[in-house]
Amino acid sequence: MIHDALSQVQADLDRLLPILEPNLTIALRGGEADRVGEAMRYSLQAGGKRVRPVLCMLASEAVEATAEKARACALALEYIHTYSLIHDDLPAMDDDDLRRGKPTCHVAFGEGQAILAGDGLLTEAFQVLAGDITLAPDQRIDAVQVLAEAAGWRGMVGGQSLDLEGEALTRSGGSYDLDHLKRIHRLKTGALLRASLELGAIAGGATFKQRANLRDAGSALGLAFQIQDDILDATSTAEKMGKRVGKDEDKGKITYPLLLGLEGARQALTEATERANALLQALPNPRSLMAWAQYLAERTA
Amino acid sequence: MIHDALSQVQADLDRLLPILEPNLTIALRGGEADRVGEAMRYSLQAGGKRVRPVLCMLASEAVEATAEKARACALALEYIHTYSLIHDDLPAMDDDDLRRGKPTCHVAFGEGQAILAGDGLLTEAFQVLAGDITLAPDQRIDAVQVLAEAAGWRGMVGGQSLDLEGEALTRSGGSYDLDHLKRIHRLKTGALLRASLELGAIAGGATFKQRANLRDAGSALGLAFQIQDDILDATSTAEKMGKRVGKDEDKGKITYPLLLGLEGARQALTEATERANALLQALPNPRSLMAWAQYLAERTA
Repeated sequence: MIHDALSQVQADLDRLLPILEPNLTIALRGGEADRVGEAMRYSLQAGGKRVRPVLCMLASEAVEATAEKARACALALEYIHTYSLIHDDLPAMDDDDLRRGKPTCHVAFGEGQAILAGDGLLTEAFQVLAGDITLAPDQRIDAVQVLAEAAGWRGMVGGQSLDLEGEALTRSGGSYDLDHLKRIHRLKTGALLRASLELGAIAGGATFKQRANLRDAGSALGLAFQIQDDILDATSTAEKMGKRVGKDEDKGKITYPLLLGLEGARQALTEATERANALLQALPNPRSLMAWAQYLAERTA
Repeated sequence: MIHDALSQVQADLDRLLPILEPNLTIALRGGEADRVGEAMRYSLQAGGKRVRPVLCMLASEAVEATAEKARACALALEYIHTYSLIHDDLPAMDDDDLRRGKPTCHVAFGEGQAILAGDGLLTEAFQVLAGDITLAPDQRIDAVQVLAEAAGWRGMVGGQSLDLEGEALTRSGGSYDLDHLKRIHRLKTGALLRASLELGAIAGGATFKQRANLRDAGSALGLAFQIQDDILDATSTAEKMGKRVGKDEDKGKITYPLLLGLEGARQALTEATERANALLQALPNPRSLMAWAQYLAERTA
């Protein structure tokens, strides 16, 4: 079963990444400001698992449309995700100098250009969505709204803000509980993962019911993904992860393993994944999407 | 004539600001992340001349639509402008601690929250545009594309990147010429001013020819606005401006007065304003827009 899922994932990646990768930076040519364009491309090309765009394209397939139909949505999601990494890595935020085994954007290009590269990618995401003439105007408007809601202060940006406040609180000896931790993650990482599936639903022309299923499955997957991230930070090695590990504990950050214990966190991860699976099973063609979700919940890096 | 223009401007502001101001922050209520929302509101409410939204609403009137029709576009422009100020003021960029006579966002809220407040406003701009149900889906898509192009790495973000590079160049003893200065400003400030008039054209349902006129007038006004900014930095006082002045020269920044002399810069300002006027005169109802353009070119703060 796990082996099946893994073969499916590998086959899907071999099929989807050639659609995605050449297009990731093709829009970023021909500008007059080479330096910020270079910084944007640098971070986009740093690799990573392309979790969100692949989720989006497989969600489109799950409602019996093609993966290609969701290509612009997939690109926009990866632009947003990459911008958020660039800004999160800044000295004023998480202050990371290594990302996916490479120097972070501000280390390579300076802080000013890194801030601008993030701003540029965030803006470009909406350009790509609005400019996709293979989608109807209503679909494009819908996608812009869903993405803006998920990425903005009611979503990812709001979660990052709460997280910064939480760090200040714990540094001064305070603490917060599981409910607050869940709220942070629902916004910080959950909102964009949910949007990944919802944008796939929009692009794939899902019914109202299918879209609700995909959105709710996205919420569950977002939780699973964050728990897994916390578990990996607590248990993996820098070599495997391509970034510093154990830094959550070093920074006194509140995590799922800290609040629930490692076994409790693993149990919560399993429950969230099963909730997602139950929702996805109701879709017409969920096999690849479910395999990818399974793979994410079991990843070791 | 100047007195006429001034009365017209005051009457227009008395009429337009009540449409604009209560809506500027009304969308920013009800979030879960109060800190970043507060930082966003703080910077939006710091005032300023509301140059871009007023241009946008008057452009809509110039093609015989109402100012209200362009309200969402006007809000989006002010969100984008405010985000750009927040990020430009950061220590890694222009490192300003005073803006419109108040502490800058990162001084008041810390660097991390200020970066996020900028990100949040940038994202919210597209949310507001896409969510304006008084515009047809085609108009909304059009507006998102024009705004993203103007604000992103092919526009404002690109210009800011070139400007950062230029500063590094002059710090190391290098220099650049008038053509390069014009390129920086065409992107850094010109693109968004041009978009202000073009968004008004889109919202107001302008003809193709009217839209081209407004866009070209926007380019000329963008140049005029930047020259006037440089002149004011060289000649005004901190008290009048509500921010540090003379900082261009302190930083060895290349400006129009530096390259053309003060009289040459004033001459270039007059020419750009006249070019804009000639284009605007061809529109059905340009009086308020022309008065506002005149006011901007003659402002003393």
